[in-house]
Amino acid sequence: MSGPARATQHASSKSAVLDVIRAAGTISRVGLINATGFTGATISTVVRKLIDEGLVVETGRAESTGGKRRVLLQLNHSSRYAVGVHLDHAGITYVLTNLGGSVVARISRAGAGAAEPRTVVGRMAAEVKSLIDSVGVDHKRVLGLGLVSPGPLSSSTGMGLTPPSMRKWEDFPLDQALEQAVNLPVVLDNDATAAALGEHWSGGIGGTAAALYMGTGIGAGLVINGIAYRGSSGNAGEIGHICVDANGPECWCGARGCVETMAGPAAVVAAARADAALAGSAGLTGRARSVSSDFAAVSRAARRGEPSAMAILERSARYIAVAARTLANIMDLEVLVLTGPSFAIAGSVYLPVVRDELDRAFFSRAAHGVDVRLSRSAATASAIGGAALVLQSELVPLHEGLRLPENLSDSEPAALPASGA
Amino acid sequence: MSGPARATQHASSKSAVLDVIRAAGTISRVGLINATGFTGATISTVVRKLIDEGLVVETGRAESTGGKRRVLLQLNHSSRYAVGVHLDHAGITYVLTNLGGSVVARISRAGAGAAEPRTVVGRMAAEVKSLIDSVGVDHKRVLGLGLVSPGPLSSSTGMGLTPPSMRKWEDFPLDQALEQAVNLPVVLDNDATAAALGEHWSGGIGGTAAALYMGTGIGAGLVINGIAYRGSSGNAGEIGHICVDANGPECWCGARGCVETMAGPAAVVAAARADAALAGSAGLTGRARSVSSDFAAVSRAARRGEPSAMAILERSARYIAVAARTLANIMDLEVLVLTGPSFAIAGSVYLPVVRDELDRAFFSRAAHGVDVRLSRSAATASAIGGAALVLQSELVPLHEGLRLPENLSDSEPAALPASGA
Repeated sequence: MSGPARATQHASSKSAVLDVIRAAGTISRVGLINATGFTGATISTVVRKLIDEGLVVETGRAESTGGKRRVLLQLNHSSRYAVGVHLDHAGITYVLTNLGGSVVARISRAGAGAAEPRTVVGRMAAEVKSLIDSVGVDHKRVLGLGLVSPGPLSSSTGMGLTPPSMRKWEDFPLDQALEQAVNLPVVLDNDATAAALGEHWSGGIGGTAAALYMGTGIGAGLVINGIAYRGSSGNAGEIGHICVDANGPECWCGARGCVETMAGPAAVVAAARADAALAGSAGLTGRARSVSSDFAAVSRAARRGEPSAMAILERSARYIAVAARTLANIMDLEVLVLTGPSFAIAGSVYLPVVRDELDRAFFSRAAHGVDVRLSRSAATASAIGGAALVLQSELVPLHEGLRLPENLSDSEPAALPASGA
Repeated sequence: MSGPARATQHASSKSAVLDVIRAAGTISRVGLINATGFTGATISTVVRKLIDEGLVVETGRAESTGGKRRVLLQLNHSSRYAVGVHLDHAGITYVLTNLGGSVVARISRAGAGAAEPRTVVGRMAAEVKSLIDSVGVDHKRVLGLGLVSPGPLSSSTGMGLTPPSMRKWEDFPLDQALEQAVNLPVVLDNDATAAALGEHWSGGIGGTAAALYMGTGIGAGLVINGIAYRGSSGNAGEIGHICVDANGPECWCGARGCVETMAGPAAVVAAARADAALAGSAGLTGRARSVSSDFAAVSRAARRGEPSAMAILERSARYIAVAARTLANIMDLEVLVLTGPSFAIAGSVYLPVVRDELDRAFFSRAAHGVDVRLSRSAATASAIGGAALVLQSELVPLHEGLRLPENLSDSEPAALPASGA
């Protein structure tokens, strides 16, 4: 089942070895040989290089299993850092992670709103600087910045943000502008794919897994054995535009009955606003730009036990569960994580409905079930994924050019707990 | 982006090199180095082995580009063969392909029907023997048999055929029974995945591609850069159970509004039978077991210009187009091939409707379009895929144990043209 694509992707034995060490925590050279299939000579050379570059350290010996006790290797967590930025209409989330993917600093700031892209980029550069400075990390140890935002991405421009709320960013070369402003290499991805990578990196999801992401819109990120599946143009997982009613209302994407239009946060808010009693008791603003805050208000009303709020959220959950089942049927999923800001708020309503749908009607349920979970870092998974993008895909080419001063302090800022959902 | 999974999949450099030679037609050793990323020493060793085993031959030299003219390599097509068998309720299709995937013999026989599995297996063994004998191929050159059938597969038993029409096969250990009966290694896969592999192998689809398969049921097979994507239990691509109406009628799978129930051949036939005038003019049998032949009769009526038949098929096509769009949005597809017996009959009605839906509403259309095609071998793609399964995934382990006599004749049966749709 091998082919030329594998050969190319596999060219970097260094990044493969690093990923195995990261996932294992601690591992011996023999363990690396078994896990990667590389020869002893290759492992020996690669590990020597990683130690020389300060990325990996030796850390004592494994328990004896009869023979010589084996030296264990682990990542040198404080040797490198990465910045993850999640840019959305409603808010910008910044995280700084260490080489192991643990969040060491985190800030949230106002979203892009209606401001001009150039202005927002200038502000972002200042906010990234203060994020890094807040924990005293040397900027030279920061490998790069992973910027994530709603899809779809277009390869012809730096970024193609076509959701209506951010249409003025459509032709803006965000990666170039940001690269100049922050003086770091920048990689881009869509928020849902990044969320899935963040869940893999910091939430421990493995196998054939997907992150069902709900912010203002709905998307999904796919991670298969630790590798993000992006499709032919980086736009895989567009679950928000799964049809749940072929004769349903028209969506902004051009199709009918998309789950995002039928059941996303904007649909929930519209239904709640149409109910005068609920709109009053929940304190809905009714303003066009406040879908996120009104969705949070409906969720609070449901948690207080207001039946009309609960009914609206459960209707949304049933449609989303159907879309989740379609995704699971197509990908033959083992794990599905609900993540993103809207699940951070209302995940407890959605989780049982999605779980029940998959238990009851996942097509391959005779062979295996789908493990449906709520993310432990639903609000920040995309930003963490942005940092993971840098660590995972850019580590090798980026750090080749990085010259660390010999006596750089090794003191490491304490890792923060993942933000709660 | 590398990881341990890659390392393992990449262990077989021999099968990777064979696949590149097959796809290229003819290629030099330098071309192989460039295409695979392997070192010159590895390519040299692997090619020597492949020549020694008779799988690859040297075939003249490339045009000079200034330096020494390079020796070209190509598959020795007549060195090995594979059998593909597509087992369905309605019919069993057998193909024999050479190492290059060209069909050299093909027969179709009665389906499994209501007969006992053991009886059917006995008949299949005789039919496989007569297939191979019909073109005078030495049985020792046949690598194995790829058996494909409707999903879902279960890893706990040899096979789990749960569609209602074949439920008595559910707990039958088909692979073991057939392996004993035909005395060949047997590999199993579902019909839709095999069809996709067959389209890749003999139809030349590349990149991020899917085969939308319609027999009696509807499924999809996914092939990404030549590698079948099977999901966690071999059941990926269950597009037949995509919901196109969350409040639609119940499906046998346990869910509501599945595209197979709303728009598959059985739904088309039911709608046509309910129209007394059409049932009469099209000559529908009305028997429960004759969905395939009644679907063909409705399709003929549509081709003759009967508006009611056309309207029923077009309604079906619109739902299937919606499911195709969902699949394309999730996978970010570049190519979608309509294949399988029902598209062999009615593909000309479906093709423009699916094409139009994807042109109009594929989510990432700003980045790229989806190339929608009708298969040139829609009736036999699954059986060809069964043979491709053997060639692609079993070649290396199987032929290691195969000892060919030195003077085996090299005369090759002529390749048949692909069966027309």
